[in-house]
Amino acid sequence: MNKASRKDVILLPNTPSIIGWASIAGKKEGDGPMGFCFDVIEPDSHFGKDTWEQAESELQRRTVELMLSNAEYTAGEVDAIFGGDLINQCTSATFGMRHLGIPFLGIYGACSTMAEGLLLAALMVDGNHMQHCAAVTSSHFSGAERQFRFPLSYGGQRTPNAQWTSTASGAVLLGECTKPPYIRGVCVGCINDQSITDTNNMGAAMAPAAIDTVLRYLMATHTRPSDYDVILTGDLGLVGSELLHQLAEQNGYDISKVHRDCGVMMFDDTTQDTHAGGSGCGCSASILCGYFLPKIASGEIKNLLFAATGALLSPMLCQQGETIPCISHLVHISAEKGADT
Amino acid sequence: MNKASRKDVILLPNTPSIIGWASIAGKKEGDGPMGFCFDVIEPDSHFGKDTWEQAESELQRRTVELMLSNAEYTAGEVDAIFGGDLINQCTSATFGMRHLGIPFLGIYGACSTMAEGLLLAALMVDGNHMQHCAAVTSSHFSGAERQFRFPLSYGGQRTPNAQWTSTASGAVLLGECTKPPYIRGVCVGCINDQSITDTNNMGAAMAPAAIDTVLRYLMATHTRPSDYDVILTGDLGLVGSELLHQLAEQNGYDISKVHRDCGVMMFDDTTQDTHAGGSGCGCSASILCGYFLPKIASGEIKNLLFAATGALLSPMLCQQGETIPCISHLVHISAEKGADT
Repeated sequence: MNKASRKDVILLPNTPSIIGWASIAGKKEGDGPMGFCFDVIEPDSHFGKDTWEQAESELQRRTVELMLSNAEYTAGEVDAIFGGDLINQCTSATFGMRHLGIPFLGIYGACSTMAEGLLLAALMVDGNHMQHCAAVTSSHFSGAERQFRFPLSYGGQRTPNAQWTSTASGAVLLGECTKPPYIRGVCVGCINDQSITDTNNMGAAMAPAAIDTVLRYLMATHTRPSDYDVILTGDLGLVGSELLHQLAEQNGYDISKVHRDCGVMMFDDTTQDTHAGGSGCGCSASILCGYFLPKIASGEIKNLLFAATGALLSPMLCQQGETIPCISHLVHISAEKGADT
Repeated sequence: MNKASRKDVILLPNTPSIIGWASIAGKKEGDGPMGFCFDVIEPDSHFGKDTWEQAESELQRRTVELMLSNAEYTAGEVDAIFGGDLINQCTSATFGMRHLGIPFLGIYGACSTMAEGLLLAALMVDGNHMQHCAAVTSSHFSGAERQFRFPLSYGGQRTPNAQWTSTASGAVLLGECTKPPYIRGVCVGCINDQSITDTNNMGAAMAPAAIDTVLRYLMATHTRPSDYDVILTGDLGLVGSELLHQLAEQNGYDISKVHRDCGVMMFDDTTQDTHAGGSGCGCSASILCGYFLPKIASGEIKNLLFAATGALLSPMLCQQGETIPCISHLVHISAEKGADT
């Protein structure tokens, strides 16, 4: 048996396509600078349900059904769906998906969940194990605030570097197809713990994980940031994005020209009081599906590295004095199948 | 594009092998009928740490390191590890794995986690995306009781159909190899919700999910229960196992002769006061790795269907009056590569 050292990057010989996608966002997200790009903006933050947890399940269910409708597929044609979210026991995904009858694989990557699901769904199709595989994630401001910080009615003040959990969801369907967006490569993240304990400064905690994964991909593929139109992080926000540029520079890379961050894009702090930007699994999921995938499908963007980041934060462990481990998974999404594959 | 209906079962043409495994259990599990089979029994329920959550992280870290040592591999040779557990934000896995430097993919399937991780790791290797892929999970009695029911110091009484969360962990390493155990097929579970709300009767809630997945596998492969030496469920316990046999019978299958349940096997209620049996992700993970994998490796057991079940239970959603969605993933583990592959 050949015990070769680990390969950092998995190139996908069959370059599966993203054959369908959808995004749904809440009112505040709809009022922000990205409001124009989402499929649906839901003004009712309860999504017609009684609790925040039920609301987020409903959000996720609606997003998957809309994605299937956009792609002109039915639930019965999907071999499996990867789903996860921030809520304890991933209830938004499990309760949201329970009546759809699609074989379900639960994942947990905090705000990196969209990249993890997309990565795994792409590998399922690329390896010919599945014909159609989906991924979904979401976040809800009110449920996340209560679980990770304080109930909204407590009226706690937010620090300047705090981020605003987006009420949003994104879903994708992968399959073999001759139309872009194609998935050309992926990189599974390593857990990165820089001993940061400030739960109000997630961007700073996550930036080292993002740069680690992005650099591993660039080095393994012998590419430079300028080979990509966009290097898209999930929700580093303003603080984390600045740190990301510094960390890249320290490693001899200038990513500032191509870097975009979904957390920075989601809100306008000058009018929306969102401080360092958006966060939550749904932030990068909805902006990827609402804004970037259509541009890759049309060829306006040729190559994009999607490196969503997750703070694997636990309120319980933080209370015990623990630090915040972070992770970032990367997916190379392209308008071209590429000569290398 | 061929929009064929979903295939229920994925057969693995390259039949990857489980090339290494390990199991670690706590003192009560060591005192039970399966105590002889675990690699290590740890008498200190804190595993040398200060809190239950840190203890379970340490348990999971030790199990992965022991598995690598058993397999004569280093962390640097593992392409990725799938990890998850019952604790909020899957901290036992993320905090346990954070210093090992192995690319990490977080999963959540409650007590079905070992089957989900094994299934996904097998597909990664079978699809030639990874050379070596691992999976790990664990549970800890004290952490799980506090999170899902009551803190131990509350001294709550347990109902007769309640199960005892095992303090245990199991880990596996998958790779291409010419030695058994081989993975020949898998079946991804659908979420099954029979509107059960009793959080002290998990076995009853999970049995329908188990039979659904097992029957989907049997029907898709045109096999009968008698074609397998063992159909192994995760932790249905005494109540859920009886229900499973009844549900099988209603569908025209007699599985009673080959069915074993890790929850039933783990403890002896007559001397250990464990009521309906063991539960927790670590229950089926440790018994699979400690007891069954060696028997498949030696050929004593030829074909085993491992169908771990998970109650995707949320204390928050239960308080909101919600029911308990359940899931079961299946992995066909064999001493033979098989003619069908």
